[in-house]
Amino acid sequence: MDGPVGREGTVTVATIEGVGAHAGEQVEIRGWLYNKRSSGSIHFLLIRDGTGVIQGVMVKKEVTPELFALADDLTQESSIVVRGTVRADARAPGGYELGITDLRVVQRAAPYPITPKEHGIEFLLDHRHLWLRSRRQHAIMRVRSEVIRAMCDLLDGRGFLRVDAPMLTPSACEGTTTLFKTPYFETTAYLTQSGQLYNEAAAMAFGKVYCFGPTFRAEKSKTRRHLTEFWMLEPEAAYFALDDVVALAEDLVAYVVERVLERRKEELKTLERDVTRLEAVQKPFPRITYDEAVARVRAAGAQMPWGDDFGGDEETVLSKQFDRPVAVTHYPTAVKAFYMQPDPQRPEVVLNCDLLAPEGYGEIVGGGERIHDLALLEQRIAEHSLPREAYEWYLDLRRYGSVPHSGFGIGIERTVTWICGLEHVRETIPFPRLINRLYP
Amino acid sequence: MDGPVGREGTVTVATIEGVGAHAGEQVEIRGWLYNKRSSGSIHFLLIRDGTGVIQGVMVKKEVTPELFALADDLTQESSIVVRGTVRADARAPGGYELGITDLRVVQRAAPYPITPKEHGIEFLLDHRHLWLRSRRQHAIMRVRSEVIRAMCDLLDGRGFLRVDAPMLTPSACEGTTTLFKTPYFETTAYLTQSGQLYNEAAAMAFGKVYCFGPTFRAEKSKTRRHLTEFWMLEPEAAYFALDDVVALAEDLVAYVVERVLERRKEELKTLERDVTRLEAVQKPFPRITYDEAVARVRAAGAQMPWGDDFGGDEETVLSKQFDRPVAVTHYPTAVKAFYMQPDPQRPEVVLNCDLLAPEGYGEIVGGGERIHDLALLEQRIAEHSLPREAYEWYLDLRRYGSVPHSGFGIGIERTVTWICGLEHVRETIPFPRLINRLYP
Repeated sequence: MDGPVGREGTVTVATIEGVGAHAGEQVEIRGWLYNKRSSGSIHFLLIRDGTGVIQGVMVKKEVTPELFALADDLTQESSIVVRGTVRADARAPGGYELGITDLRVVQRAAPYPITPKEHGIEFLLDHRHLWLRSRRQHAIMRVRSEVIRAMCDLLDGRGFLRVDAPMLTPSACEGTTTLFKTPYFETTAYLTQSGQLYNEAAAMAFGKVYCFGPTFRAEKSKTRRHLTEFWMLEPEAAYFALDDVVALAEDLVAYVVERVLERRKEELKTLERDVTRLEAVQKPFPRITYDEAVARVRAAGAQMPWGDDFGGDEETVLSKQFDRPVAVTHYPTAVKAFYMQPDPQRPEVVLNCDLLAPEGYGEIVGGGERIHDLALLEQRIAEHSLPREAYEWYLDLRRYGSVPHSGFGIGIERTVTWICGLEHVRETIPFPRLINRLYP
Repeated sequence: MDGPVGREGTVTVATIEGVGAHAGEQVEIRGWLYNKRSSGSIHFLLIRDGTGVIQGVMVKKEVTPELFALADDLTQESSIVVRGTVRADARAPGGYELGITDLRVVQRAAPYPITPKEHGIEFLLDHRHLWLRSRRQHAIMRVRSEVIRAMCDLLDGRGFLRVDAPMLTPSACEGTTTLFKTPYFETTAYLTQSGQLYNEAAAMAFGKVYCFGPTFRAEKSKTRRHLTEFWMLEPEAAYFALDDVVALAEDLVAYVVERVLERRKEELKTLERDVTRLEAVQKPFPRITYDEAVARVRAAGAQMPWGDDFGGDEETVLSKQFDRPVAVTHYPTAVKAFYMQPDPQRPEVVLNCDLLAPEGYGEIVGGGERIHDLALLEQRIAEHSLPREAYEWYLDLRRYGSVPHSGFGIGIERTVTWICGLEHVRETIPFPRLINRLYP
């Protein structure tokens, strides 16, 4: 065996995910004991290695008494290196099991805090560094990774250039009340809430761009949809109009769902996700205006004056009425950010689009056309009492070759929450940051 | 024309990069005027659209007098939509030019601050949102994007799972003196300097992982190698030893260089990069110990006591001695982070590896084996006077199935600086953050 924990002899080192390529052969697997049950004469060791879980079978009469006793003494999450023969077995979860012939204990784990019994959420979050080892978290993280990869693939394939936006900024995208801030040498820096303004500069330079990275909101919201630190992918394109944005968002979401269905079937099964709900996510998505959305919310029995933004409850009502994401356009200008392009025909609404995920999940995408006229943007900055000097560079984009342009942001955690069918966004990011949670 | 700036009639909308597929055809290009020269009877309009630059030729006698006058009046960076016939032309930079038949001005730009004359670096950085439009910056950003993509492709292909590390952390990876910090509700959060500690938790859960995102250092360094905000890719793997790390770093760097040579040839030409230097970057990379490196620095005439870390000057000396990256291993334990695994044969050095890029560029990779023994890690935390309670979760990784494991971080900006052959890292990130620079 090569590597730092070696002993004599060489055997193919296999991953559990790839074990099928070695059926009938002797392999070595390096991992951890996930679970164990024993009869008097056989140990069934459930072994995980980060790519999957396999059952290892150790038969008393086939190994030395010392080895059988060693396995008997193993604790949950002990790190072990096992060797054995890969056997096809239709009853086994991955289709294979391992007939163990040798086992070495790298470390016998101390009594593991996360046991098969139920634990409270705060306990699990306190132990997030260990909780990640569970099958369910493994499935979620693999879906998350596939979602990110699929999004980048689609945009790269369409000629969008990745242009990273800065995290530390001198000014706020949508006001300073919900911003984290840090002393920055002689001045103060704010943590970005969105890469959009910088994306607009990049779109004027490179045509079609996207940024992808963490964003921060110091909101005191304690809902199932909020994290203080979350990841967002934001495409932005010069010469794009509202229709282009709706079409791109639709393509992106449909493609991501298709990719997860195709490549993360096992993970969705582990999560007991009803995949028929995901299979229904086909283009075109329904498209309604804010006006119609308000009418629908009212028809569902809620009081809602025209002009209010939708809260979580209204989004839930709306998104339960469709079997796929719904695009809601033309929100009231007054509830949207200063840079949103008013509808020329009806300036009290903007040329925006939010995408609400179905089954009550609500907003996953927000975007639309940006103001490209210098005078109008100056006026809006004044109306919002924003510090003009901090936006001089942003105004420059309207001085030097301004063009109509549009874009959107899609929240990774909300998208993953919906695709996985989870209750709360907190499980969709490796180390969630919440109003009362900064550890581990 | 579709889109928000339309007029009558439809014509294929083409990108400059893809114009070769339409030779002999009429196309529409939406972009900006990059530069212009005129004879009395012909305007040569250099047009950029974010994918490339093409020369458009407008002949006086082939268009209306109004159109010819309109083109004559165009200012640099004016946004324009042009139509014309794509003509193969061996003398043209991309191999094609455009015979302009129609032109519409979306916005006539105000006098553009960045002119073909020389500008000082502070002026250019003040106008970074516009400077990005230049050919040189375009080339750098396309190389950057390719570097990122190539790294992720290689790791994804080898079964490394992307697991994002948090930005907001309760504790410091390597001490708090160079950390940015923000009030975080009732407490204080620090901006991450490295995802490594979290990566280690992820590696124990998923075997092979990587994180990729921004990291922050509040260092008062004003060198050509330092940014306060920079992007880092960090792979980490369970059951990996120093040799595995060296091999992976070597594979990664060689692959990235190969990909850029293959797919970003034009950009390297724009940057006047000597590609023979990049073509020399073939595996295996030379590998020396710290001891040998010190001897080489001394032989080059520098005073350097054994035990000191290399500064920028020493790295430059070393990296100029090789035609490809050099792996330097076994640094003094005293100058390295608390979590580094001491060499069992010689505990005054650690099982680490830095990769120094050639041509004087210096460190691009830092990594090695991590301590996996609980008692030793506890001892090191105490010796470094680190707040033990903040590291309890990290210690847990050594309580529950600890295994030997290793990883490294590779700095995106330093890698791009080297590959592009630049003087300073500041041009390799879209919006650089420096000790005296937070704008735009």
